[in-house]
Amino acid sequence: MANYLSMTKEELAVEFETVKHEFEKIKGAKLSLDMSRGKPGADQLDLSEELLGLVSAKTGFKSENGTETRNYGGLDGLSELKKLFGEVLGMDSENVICGGNSSLNMMFDTITQGMVTGFGEGPWMTQGKVKFICPSPGYDRHFGICEYYGMELIMVKNTETGPDMDAVEELVKDPLVKGMWCVPKYSNPTGITYSDETVKRIAALKPAAKDFRVMWDNAYVVHDLYNTTDPLLNIYEECVKNGNEDLVFQFTSTSKITYPGAGVAAEAASPNNIKMLKARMTVQTIGPDKVNQLCHARMIPSIEALAKQMKRHADILRPKFEACLKQFSDALGDKGIATWTTPKGGYFISMEVLSGCAKRVGELCKEAGLVITAPGAPFPYGLDPEDSNLRIAPSFPGVKELAVAAEVLCVAVKYAALEKLVK
Amino acid sequence: MANYLSMTKEELAVEFETVKHEFEKIKGAKLSLDMSRGKPGADQLDLSEELLGLVSAKTGFKSENGTETRNYGGLDGLSELKKLFGEVLGMDSENVICGGNSSLNMMFDTITQGMVTGFGEGPWMTQGKVKFICPSPGYDRHFGICEYYGMELIMVKNTETGPDMDAVEELVKDPLVKGMWCVPKYSNPTGITYSDETVKRIAALKPAAKDFRVMWDNAYVVHDLYNTTDPLLNIYEECVKNGNEDLVFQFTSTSKITYPGAGVAAEAASPNNIKMLKARMTVQTIGPDKVNQLCHARMIPSIEALAKQMKRHADILRPKFEACLKQFSDALGDKGIATWTTPKGGYFISMEVLSGCAKRVGELCKEAGLVITAPGAPFPYGLDPEDSNLRIAPSFPGVKELAVAAEVLCVAVKYAALEKLVK
Repeated sequence: MANYLSMTKEELAVEFETVKHEFEKIKGAKLSLDMSRGKPGADQLDLSEELLGLVSAKTGFKSENGTETRNYGGLDGLSELKKLFGEVLGMDSENVICGGNSSLNMMFDTITQGMVTGFGEGPWMTQGKVKFICPSPGYDRHFGICEYYGMELIMVKNTETGPDMDAVEELVKDPLVKGMWCVPKYSNPTGITYSDETVKRIAALKPAAKDFRVMWDNAYVVHDLYNTTDPLLNIYEECVKNGNEDLVFQFTSTSKITYPGAGVAAEAASPNNIKMLKARMTVQTIGPDKVNQLCHARMIPSIEALAKQMKRHADILRPKFEACLKQFSDALGDKGIATWTTPKGGYFISMEVLSGCAKRVGELCKEAGLVITAPGAPFPYGLDPEDSNLRIAPSFPGVKELAVAAEVLCVAVKYAALEKLVK
Repeated sequence: MANYLSMTKEELAVEFETVKHEFEKIKGAKLSLDMSRGKPGADQLDLSEELLGLVSAKTGFKSENGTETRNYGGLDGLSELKKLFGEVLGMDSENVICGGNSSLNMMFDTITQGMVTGFGEGPWMTQGKVKFICPSPGYDRHFGICEYYGMELIMVKNTETGPDMDAVEELVKDPLVKGMWCVPKYSNPTGITYSDETVKRIAALKPAAKDFRVMWDNAYVVHDLYNTTDPLLNIYEECVKNGNEDLVFQFTSTSKITYPGAGVAAEAASPNNIKMLKARMTVQTIGPDKVNQLCHARMIPSIEALAKQMKRHADILRPKFEACLKQFSDALGDKGIATWTTPKGGYFISMEVLSGCAKRVGELCKEAGLVITAPGAPFPYGLDPEDSNLRIAPSFPGVKELAVAAEVLCVAVKYAALEKLVK
């Protein structure tokens, strides 16, 4: 009697009454829970308690090569951080730019540069209505940048191995298709990591537009939940093999390593791309906040120190993911109305519910005092064509709160499914 | 025999020999001096020694209204800093945005927004070859932004009371003229402050372009050298009186209050302008570095604390300005070949030498081991039509070094003048 899809109408009606009763009970508890944002919790913030104290009159304000961090200058950041980010992304440090606190800002500025001055082929803006490939579900803020600039957002499916490459290879034949968003590791929101084949096929793309660029947001590059890591091919090396080295801009940051709002972001690319970025940056700013960069360089002096810090994050995050997944499994495992990802890293779990039910789940959660990411948000224009995807962010609430939140979510998922099935 | 302009050819030749001798002696000393950049000196950096220590686990990471500064969020900055910058600029705090470490970056982003999405009248980019008014001598990085975007830079004269407003009023009749740069107080590089009449005439402009904007870079708003201050009218209030409240974007920063590379920048404008800026920013970033903002809010909790900090800067800078000015007066006061400004604040002295001599002075200084700002730099396209202006930045070297540097400069000025006059 467990699987809803094999129940009779009568059985479904009985089950619906039970679930309605559960739901009313939850509503009565007047909860106030939030699983909507991939925001580190307070205990994770405390892991970087020492950060600001590492730079003072006593320890000095100079970087390893003698740069006075407090004064002007240093367009592309401190050499020690360029090295660290280079190691993380598998890039030579001279091909890395360390910026301010926001990798999103670096992405926005890069896309803006495409629009207004372009990447060697004139401004995108003057070439017609530019299009951008948006593997979905994906990160709403990526798509938001393209939407802001009035581009046409083209959805392709994000599969278990990454974007649907058959579709992508077809789309790049259009010279107005200027780029593509990717979160290659522990993808937001599906949690999957691109397969070797996917990375190789991306690196081998021969787009009609010479100024086509892949926006490779490696936000979760070192964000493992377990002692193993999902392997990811080095996109730049693959691009070089294909004579395609200008194809990709890579991004990452310490937002989920130190402080979300006060970390250091980085962008890496080919020498030619870096040269184009710096031609803009040298007009845009005198340089990034090197004092904060020095704090970071001192707190994370090596890949080993980074791994240690990430293990501490994982120890906090893992129980949260597991609490959610256990609840999903217990409450929905045998119901046939939902599937979900079991990521080995990152900040999100993605759930597929019955087609046409996701928005309703969102409404029910809200009624019950639980905020989840607006269903549809991870899709271009906020429209999930199947209305079936839910993005679940387990990082911010405490483990106990989270177990309750996951329970509420499961009841809402059952409720919405039954509502559909009893009709 | 003092004034070169009243000397006979023979007298000039004799004087030239003396000056050449002086110059060779200086060259022999193999100096290495730099008066090229408006960079605070090391002792000024030490005035903010406490900054980073003010935020720690002990003092807490929350702002006055309970905002967790380490986490994401807070698009327009901490309320305490919005208040402080509001007081400094004479604006309501809700009309202030606090950003990252660079006001130049905020200006660049604002101009970029004009280019690519515009200010209510469509993108500037699609309206033709846009023009920008550049009062000169002015700040080369301002002009550089417009040059980068391929605008036509239109020079107007920066007089003792500010930009030549007769010229400006004429120019804004052209709908392709989209804006104007201003450094209204202790202007870079002339050191003058705009007169009340100039501010009133700017505020009363009725440009043909509805999307014309004044870029009001109030970089030296609290940067007095003495106990008095050059009075400056509140541009926004004047604009409001004229029904012109959307005319102006104001900028300032703590770059020369705390750390040049790691301060906090701010932008202020009308509610309508702020709304347009935020529409872009909300897509561009999740928010500025609030931890650094909290450090600043705690170090400078009031206008009084700010005044105290600026007095400490003035005590370091004043002797440097005075050492230069004394040297100029001693060496050039009676020669009739140079005039210079005597600013009451800011970071620069501006010198006018004989027409056609500025570049030559730059070359001679270089030969003698002194770097000065490239003559011409403070003009659109780097071209000083008179080749007569020198920007002198006395802040970075120590007082003793500076006296030597000023001496070298004076010899170079005499050398170049005599070279011209003996012909």
